[in-house]
Amino acid sequence: MQNKTFKIGFIGMGTVAQGVWKHLEKSFETMTARFGAKYELAKACVRYISKKRGVDIPLEKLTENPYDIINDPSIDIVCELMGGTTDAFDITISALKAGKVVVSANKAVICKRGAEIFETAQSNNGAYFFEASVAGGIPVIKVLREGLVANRFSKIYGILNGTCNYILTRMERENASYDSVIADARRLGYVEADESLDIDGWDAAHKISILAYLAHGVWIDPSKDMLVSGIRGIRLEDMVWAKEFDCRIKLIASVRKNEETGALFAAVYPAILPLTDVVANVNEVYNAVSLTGDVVGRTVHIGRGAGQDATASAVIADIADAIAYLQGKPARPASNVVAEKSRMATLEEVSDEFYLRMEVPDRSGVLASVASDLAGEGISVELLQQRKHETEGKAWLLFTTHKTTEAAIKRACEKLKKADYVFDEPFVLRIWKSE
Amino acid sequence: MQNKTFKIGFIGMGTVAQGVWKHLEKSFETMTARFGAKYELAKACVRYISKKRGVDIPLEKLTENPYDIINDPSIDIVCELMGGTTDAFDITISALKAGKVVVSANKAVICKRGAEIFETAQSNNGAYFFEASVAGGIPVIKVLREGLVANRFSKIYGILNGTCNYILTRMERENASYDSVIADARRLGYVEADESLDIDGWDAAHKISILAYLAHGVWIDPSKDMLVSGIRGIRLEDMVWAKEFDCRIKLIASVRKNEETGALFAAVYPAILPLTDVVANVNEVYNAVSLTGDVVGRTVHIGRGAGQDATASAVIADIADAIAYLQGKPARPASNVVAEKSRMATLEEVSDEFYLRMEVPDRSGVLASVASDLAGEGISVELLQQRKHETEGKAWLLFTTHKTTEAAIKRACEKLKKADYVFDEPFVLRIWKSE
Repeated sequence: MQNKTFKIGFIGMGTVAQGVWKHLEKSFETMTARFGAKYELAKACVRYISKKRGVDIPLEKLTENPYDIINDPSIDIVCELMGGTTDAFDITISALKAGKVVVSANKAVICKRGAEIFETAQSNNGAYFFEASVAGGIPVIKVLREGLVANRFSKIYGILNGTCNYILTRMERENASYDSVIADARRLGYVEADESLDIDGWDAAHKISILAYLAHGVWIDPSKDMLVSGIRGIRLEDMVWAKEFDCRIKLIASVRKNEETGALFAAVYPAILPLTDVVANVNEVYNAVSLTGDVVGRTVHIGRGAGQDATASAVIADIADAIAYLQGKPARPASNVVAEKSRMATLEEVSDEFYLRMEVPDRSGVLASVASDLAGEGISVELLQQRKHETEGKAWLLFTTHKTTEAAIKRACEKLKKADYVFDEPFVLRIWKSE
Repeated sequence: MQNKTFKIGFIGMGTVAQGVWKHLEKSFETMTARFGAKYELAKACVRYISKKRGVDIPLEKLTENPYDIINDPSIDIVCELMGGTTDAFDITISALKAGKVVVSANKAVICKRGAEIFETAQSNNGAYFFEASVAGGIPVIKVLREGLVANRFSKIYGILNGTCNYILTRMERENASYDSVIADARRLGYVEADESLDIDGWDAAHKISILAYLAHGVWIDPSKDMLVSGIRGIRLEDMVWAKEFDCRIKLIASVRKNEETGALFAAVYPAILPLTDVVANVNEVYNAVSLTGDVVGRTVHIGRGAGQDATASAVIADIADAIAYLQGKPARPASNVVAEKSRMATLEEVSDEFYLRMEVPDRSGVLASVASDLAGEGISVELLQQRKHETEGKAWLLFTTHKTTEAAIKRACEKLKKADYVFDEPFVLRIWKSE
């Protein structure tokens, strides 16, 4: 076994896969020494063999049929880097059943069907590695599962979507509106074809769902059991407000556990963070993950959350673990995730401080009506500002609240949305408590 | 093997060991599931059996003779948590030769005799884990070796001593002198008996030496091949200057590699960091490690660098890896560290920008003489301030320089130290470039 050469097959040859191929080719000697074994870049399944790509792959190693890799008994490790949730799922299951070790960066498929994938890996005595699925180059899965194995995690939060962080950073630095920055980001190709995945928080939701599973042993469905909102509604007025209080707005993905009640709360939403929190100082395409453990206290991990090389770094780490596994040294299987005694929190159980922005007609009585609606839900206002609106006859009302429940805010917003003294829906930000 | 109970022996039962014992006892079920195996806290070697301690250990598990643990064939894992470099070394070597897996938090012994320890582990087909030796609760060794296995590291730097960071944070926040803060820290018991280890940079030097070995495969002797200076000389004047330029002073341990020449430079010294660097925002007893890899780019890892629980978290992670190893799943042996083609840099090869503070007589001609000494070494001044001194007839001269070599600064300081127009030795800070 010691002199065996491990053969790696790639399904999907996009940006990330090309990065992995390139680095494993270039650093063959160093990687062989570090892996403690030789490896071979054996085969790659692509959509069109004839297409030009950034790395030179000999024609005889290319195929358009993934089963040429899955059914090849000489292939040890399959890197699923095709994305999507339908074909990717089938291919992953087939590869695991064929006895391959699978490495994946596909957060969507893990979030949706992780339970089945891990179960298949387990029952075939195989392994599935997915470091690159969360926070790109930051090895947060290894940190959470191995480096911090001693801990229970009461709070995990962070910036898990680089595109949103890039947009928010540019809005703040250039004093530019969301619309103008997103237009520019589209031009530069920084936004995916399906831009809702990034902008509306779903990508970050998939990632926090994976971290929540690893920490608590519970699969949280973003579309059912998570509050998910993105960055579309954020205006410069909100950023100005945040700045006045030495804060910054970030799209925060989080999962918190109330240790007394066992209630879990997972969410993705824009939040106002104090600049004293290092996470608030993580800008541009960088990601950050803050893990609060009962033994270690708080640790924070920062790095590039996307991009060819950063993601390739994580995939290569998984290949190293896959080789260790195949040498008879399995890394932690997903089966050793401990399912804690827990349940999803109700919105009545989750309390935070909030920031509310409303577009209102500029006439007397409005403030009283809004204040009365908030009071009716038991929401106590901490600060209030009325700001000039760019349109004649309108005004902005900005509130921050004392601690109140998500449920109360939700009810108040529904009421205000229907009221004739508030245009549109109130825009909500959470005021994040870092500790 | 699957149903085997792994027996753990402790040599040394101080703060950290008690933390490990406490958490492994309290979280037995969760840890058993995560480790994939049962374990037993089997024996503890203490200095005085009769001494009171924070955890209840049954009398029959206590011994005053470490060889009662080393020679007990039923013990699988030995945690060396006694500290020191002489007995700890002998005990570690004996334990490895007796076929034990050894877990250690002892940076001093690794820095001094790591080569022999790793070699002994290797030749006895054993394993030695030491996550807790660097940066306490931050799993930086696992991150560097496993999570970022794809990378070569051109630059590693960070805050590796919590005591110094605590002192610097209090000096800055309270506008308090070094002398008053250290006096208070001594009163509170935050400073070790041998305080030079922390304050003069040696503890951080041991830690950066370990990271340098893991990254570059070269053992760097702090007392021979490293610039090591601590925080004793820092004055409030320096902090005020740093603040004016939106910077903060931190004790930075670093190892940099010039990829073109292969020259390595390792150092521990106080440096001026821009507040835009997250590392500059890591305060109190927290540590931070920034790793710049050729594939992943920059990642930063932050957490508590010391303390019972944070360090226990790292030791427990090592115990998990030790159990995985004993189940036939060895984690990366130290033998897979790749010794790169490299050599130590000369001081002529290392260029930085510098801050120099000098106490001078308040009379004409002094500035000209100092300026001429700097010019004589080819050092070009960027900024200059003369500040009031608390003593009549004296003044402070503060300079920053354009990029110049460590050798030129060293020569200039030696000259200025001897000059009759400078009292004492010039105080030097490096102006850190984070990227």
